[in-house]
Amino acid sequence: MPRTFSSSPVRDLLALTARPEVISFAGGLPAPELFDVEGLREAFGRAVSRRSLQYAPTEGDPDLRALVAARLTARGLPTATGDLLVTTGSQQALTLIATALLEPGAVVAVEEPTYLAALQCFRLAGARVVPVAGDERGMDPDALAEVVERERPELLYLVPTFANPTGRTLDETRRRAIAALAERHGLWVVEDDPYGELRYRGEPVPALASFGERVLHLGSFSKVGAPGLRLGWLRAPEPILRTLVVVKQAADLHTSAVDQAAAAVYLAAHDLDAHVARLCATYRERRDAMLAALPDTVPAGTTWTDPDGGMFVWLTLPGEVDTAVLLREALARDVAFVPGASFYATTPDHSTLRLSFTTATPAEIAEGMRRLASAF
Amino acid sequence: MPRTFSSSPVRDLLALTARPEVISFAGGLPAPELFDVEGLREAFGRAVSRRSLQYAPTEGDPDLRALVAARLTARGLPTATGDLLVTTGSQQALTLIATALLEPGAVVAVEEPTYLAALQCFRLAGARVVPVAGDERGMDPDALAEVVERERPELLYLVPTFANPTGRTLDETRRRAIAALAERHGLWVVEDDPYGELRYRGEPVPALASFGERVLHLGSFSKVGAPGLRLGWLRAPEPILRTLVVVKQAADLHTSAVDQAAAAVYLAAHDLDAHVARLCATYRERRDAMLAALPDTVPAGTTWTDPDGGMFVWLTLPGEVDTAVLLREALARDVAFVPGASFYATTPDHSTLRLSFTTATPAEIAEGMRRLASAF
Repeated sequence: MPRTFSSSPVRDLLALTARPEVISFAGGLPAPELFDVEGLREAFGRAVSRRSLQYAPTEGDPDLRALVAARLTARGLPTATGDLLVTTGSQQALTLIATALLEPGAVVAVEEPTYLAALQCFRLAGARVVPVAGDERGMDPDALAEVVERERPELLYLVPTFANPTGRTLDETRRRAIAALAERHGLWVVEDDPYGELRYRGEPVPALASFGERVLHLGSFSKVGAPGLRLGWLRAPEPILRTLVVVKQAADLHTSAVDQAAAAVYLAAHDLDAHVARLCATYRERRDAMLAALPDTVPAGTTWTDPDGGMFVWLTLPGEVDTAVLLREALARDVAFVPGASFYATTPDHSTLRLSFTTATPAEIAEGMRRLASAF
Repeated sequence: MPRTFSSSPVRDLLALTARPEVISFAGGLPAPELFDVEGLREAFGRAVSRRSLQYAPTEGDPDLRALVAARLTARGLPTATGDLLVTTGSQQALTLIATALLEPGAVVAVEEPTYLAALQCFRLAGARVVPVAGDERGMDPDALAEVVERERPELLYLVPTFANPTGRTLDETRRRAIAALAERHGLWVVEDDPYGELRYRGEPVPALASFGERVLHLGSFSKVGAPGLRLGWLRAPEPILRTLVVVKQAADLHTSAVDQAAAAVYLAAHDLDAHVARLCATYRERRDAMLAALPDTVPAGTTWTDPDGGMFVWLTLPGEVDTAVLLREALARDVAFVPGASFYATTPDHSTLRLSFTTATPAEIAEGMRRLASAF
């Protein structure tokens, strides 16, 4: 008998944004008008070769790994080429880690709410997911200590910087505490960091991986470059990395060698920092437009996060409202968001929702928020 | 504790071919000098766009799926766009199928010997792999019936056309018998078909999937186009396909949208059949060169297969020889092959080995076979 899996939440969500008249705050998509289409086209033109068209090493293109290692090092996380495995997007890294580290029945601790496709991935691996409480400073280390004591998780998953779905950032004190706790208990930590470079305010916080040896750090080209290439990377200590390479080989042999070569050409020829600065300037405006509109959009008593970066604002409505029901009202008015329930590992809070501000212009955001106000 | 996995056989093999002075008969690689580098470069130039750089549907690029469906239909396997899932190489299809269909402890039946990375993949899923006997006409349906009776496998895996590693082809009578047996027992069959278009002699045999509803058919761009793109496809009946889409979403969200768009542009603009005909003309010469040299290369009493297509010749040496030991002798003489043991699910025959004839010219094959003769 085939195993049965519930239909995927992300998948159902992406369908919401298909109608062109909808102003979508639902996706976690980068703004396509900011893609460097010309630069990437030129990079592909230079990258296509007999070498990049052939089978390639599972670990990834050595040039790309060296460039990524240099970037991570420059951002304060000392990384050698040999510490990195190129993955088919960050999403693949999650599945590889689940396969490598989790036996069926293993326990995974997560912040709550958290990235829904990570939840999906741990569930597919047969793991039991347990939530850890947090607040505007991110996951609470005391709450984590208690969960570790009670549940003995194998793995802790979190998006410490500009989290999906809340936009919150784990502060440095708590990063140190969580890394120390992981060392003490032999807990593996997955630091999923697709948004870290998209900072619109304040100073960077050092990566969780810089505070301990038990942290697997995941990065991605999807938010700072383009997601269509499906390029991510995983920084892990030996021997975990060796095991992950074996698992990846069974998963897809290697990530597209053409895409890797194109990314390496692009990173060598372009100033990605300057591109990221352009992204940040635009996304900052969009975040500001959304936050400015929120007080006139939502009912009194609604609370929301105030993200320093990333893509998301997280709302909690007052009273006994179900945002899944509200979504139907919103779609009838051609505006979309993500109901919050699917970001919960266990007991969902149905009064929550996620708004993404990256793909709409300030004018579209103003219009979308007006439509949303009418739905509320 | 992390799970532990034995180091990967394919991986160790690819390392053999790295030294430039080695004439390698070890890989299962297409000949890079036959890649249509210019055609693919132009296709990438046209494919890079805001759309192909963005996140994309998990099922795959609709244009590519339609083109692949038309090709399969033209080859005698009626296929609609909706029957197909694009995968990150055929290898990914195997892992998705293992995740979707196999609980730990499930039984998978395979022809013996068979593709070693498939064995790896089923083992990673916690399955028990049981071999089914065959001969020069491919898997023996009576032997399969007996295994089905005794072991109650969930899945049957085979490469029916120009098998890896033997080069053998399952004949039509046996295909019908195996498809009927699968229907009768509710057995899922994986027809892995990366080599089917590389025929150098004789008439095409209809796909196993054309004889029954229980067959998942896997195809690949790796052998007829270029493997660096990691593009494969999976043709499956609903609801298996729906489940596989959910599993794929957790695995990597979707296959590179740029690579898919480039392949779609390429297939629409070029005559792939003409390209395949060129590949076949060259590979036919190389197969002939290898088969012609074999009698003077190997010890008396050696037997080998006589493939109608594909990439491989399979040898069985006389007596108590271990080809893993022989490989060291061969490498000392700058020639490489794959010892046969790792292609066995259970009890390996150490006197076997696999030769690939695709990447060496006839002159290099002649020289490589002379070196091999001196090693024997």
